Amino acid sequence: MAEFDYSHRVVKLQELMSEIGVGATLLSVGADLPYFTGYEAMPTERLTMLVVPVVGDPILFIPRLEAPRVVAGDFEMLAWDETDDPVALVAKAASGAERALIGDHTWSVFLVGLQKELPDISWAPASTVTKQLRMRKDRGEIEALRSAAHGVDRVLARVPGEVVFAGRTEVEVANDLRRMTVEEGHEMAAFAIVASGPNGASPHHEPEQRVIEPGDLAICDFGGRYEGYYSDVTRTFSVGDPTQEQVEIHAVVAAANAAGQSAVGPGVPCQEVDRATRYVVVEAGYGEYFIHRTGHGIGLEVHEHPYLVEGNDLGLEAGMTFSIEPGIYLPGQLGVRIEDIAVCTETGIDALNRADRNLVVVA
Amino acid sequence: MAEFDYSHRVVKLQELMSEIGVGATLLSVGADLPYFTGYEAMPTERLTMLVVPVVGDPILFIPRLEAPRVVAGDFEMLAWDETDDPVALVAKAASGAERALIGDHTWSVFLVGLQKELPDISWAPASTVTKQLRMRKDRGEIEALRSAAHGVDRVLARVPGEVVFAGRTEVEVANDLRRMTVEEGHEMAAFAIVASGPNGASPHHEPEQRVIEPGDLAICDFGGRYEGYYSDVTRTFSVGDPTQEQVEIHAVVAAANAAGQSAVGPGVPCQEVDRATRYVVVEAGYGEYFIHRTGHGIGLEVHEHPYLVEGNDLGLEAGMTFSIEPGIYLPGQLGVRIEDIAVCTETGIDALNRADRNLVVVA
Repeated sequence: MAEFDYSHRVVKLQELMSEIGVGATLLSVGADLPYFTGYEAMPTERLTMLVVPVVGDPILFIPRLEAPRVVAGDFEMLAWDETDDPVALVAKAASGAERALIGDHTWSVFLVGLQKELPDISWAPASTVTKQLRMRKDRGEIEALRSAAHGVDRVLARVPGEVVFAGRTEVEVANDLRRMTVEEGHEMAAFAIVASGPNGASPHHEPEQRVIEPGDLAICDFGGRYEGYYSDVTRTFSVGDPTQEQVEIHAVVAAANAAGQSAVGPGVPCQEVDRATRYVVVEAGYGEYFIHRTGHGIGLEVHEHPYLVEGNDLGLEAGMTFSIEPGIYLPGQLGVRIEDIAVCTETGIDALNRADRNLVVVA
Repeated sequence: MAEFDYSHRVVKLQELMSEIGVGATLLSVGADLPYFTGYEAMPTERLTMLVVPVVGDPILFIPRLEAPRVVAGDFEMLAWDETDDPVALVAKAASGAERALIGDHTWSVFLVGLQKELPDISWAPASTVTKQLRMRKDRGEIEALRSAAHGVDRVLARVPGEVVFAGRTEVEVANDLRRMTVEEGHEMAAFAIVASGPNGASPHHEPEQRVIEPGDLAICDFGGRYEGYYSDVTRTFSVGDPTQEQVEIHAVVAAANAAGQSAVGPGVPCQEVDRATRYVVVEAGYGEYFIHRTGHGIGLEVHEHPYLVEGNDLGLEAGMTFSIEPGIYLPGQLGVRIEDIAVCTETGIDALNRADRNLVVVA
């Protein structure tokens, strides 16, 4: 497992806070907290919150019963008891600030409470600053993402030989993918979409009891956590021999994926990668059926900055990691998506997923 | 699966909103949204939000690619595209309100965005109102919770015969519990704490690679989702024959659990149940080692209102459902917890978990 220099990250955060006049950053559930401390808050009604002042050591407020979970670091720890008011404790620690950042995923019930205690502070989402750090992966992070990607690539290589689709439900196939994701080295399987036949037209379809039939296309979009970092890959399989239309649509999506990969490089605006994949799909006449952006950043979260979407003119930089996942969705008929994780390098792209991008036939 | 009258629930919500002068309730991730619509938002950076006006039909704002997931109900649906600004769309729909409620678990990044768009609205957590409805379970909800509780009771009954502890890791035993939770009818296993030997002293211990040894006590705290409702049960097993001290501490916790169950009844303040369990533990001389509240409500979430904690003088009512889970935690040595889910009835208590509360020996 890669070792990360949390103290250095906090110093970088404090430098950025100082530059924009922020007095305190408050982090709770979500990936910012583990990025800066190695500790992940439990998503419960008991508040866990790190208060990072612009100068000095951070303080981690934590429910007493969860204090034994924390590995000590360069922060003070303050365990609160069941009859304490943790929002009041945090507010006191942050009370010197005029401007504060609040972790994006922090539950609103806590922000509303803090705003009541601290009516004069102006708040902004922490990601406005933390994304500047988290988007730019270091070598250890990239290697963790590579290991994760190779893990799901090994799952995909096993699918044609080991996973039967026809006559089984989407849920059963999804459970196979989850199991194999763990077998191939992930700490946990985080998600597994299996969207077969007409269900493929719903990009975020929840696997259900539909029995997969010969002639279906089946989108398999799955991933998990590997040394804290996520995998996320999609391949679309043909259950039995595909029709000419299925072959053609899959070829369009594969070409769009390739066009997206070719577009990546340092300085290229995020939206240009989206335009590159979309151009291929539009030219093939399926533009209206590509109903989502081309990709999302990935790291400690499955979805994070940068987003490859029209309107995002942020320039890619070496060390940024993201998905490229064009798709075509014909309502009532089928869906096709091909997704890979890639790293922007000094010279272009390093594709972390290398699994076969052709239309693979399964039983 | 129980059928719920979502429209009726929305009407009740609107009545409560009207009483306290709230113009709009905005719900996103968390259990309020499925409680009122049957639809659960995906926890992502793409905003899903239901706007419930004090009068008229709610509007569900949803990412276009997730729109096919929604089963139509008595609400309008507005699918937004990848280049839209969903916060601005929601803000427009809520702009008539002077006071608004925001779902407790809604990500702060969205609340900060809404506050920028709607600077004159005052916000309060939605739970201040929704808990009035969600705490009081109807018959269908109680039966779902009963089915869930019986499912994990069946797992516990299988443990002594099927699960070997000694020589295996906490992670392996936790995976057994998760698998059996699904085998016994749950849609999914939500969590499984296995805390053995000295790890037992950490109430929210994350199962790790520690090899369990003869002579350990092993806290097993696990549950899952069953027809949308959660189970949550804890038993502490003895790996091989227990010592006299282990037997005694377990007996204290069992007596505290029984005292808590006896204290439940309509009109009894929540804190009185906490006091009842704590009295037993304090009298036995272990008061300082019972470091958490006695229990939490349970339903569409594992933890919800009401909380059985000192300071909560809310009176229990028939239909309220909650855990009773006293524990003793000796740092560096061991932990014991015994947890059951119960329903307050018109006359007292209906214990949903019935698994053996004695100290059971496992291999």
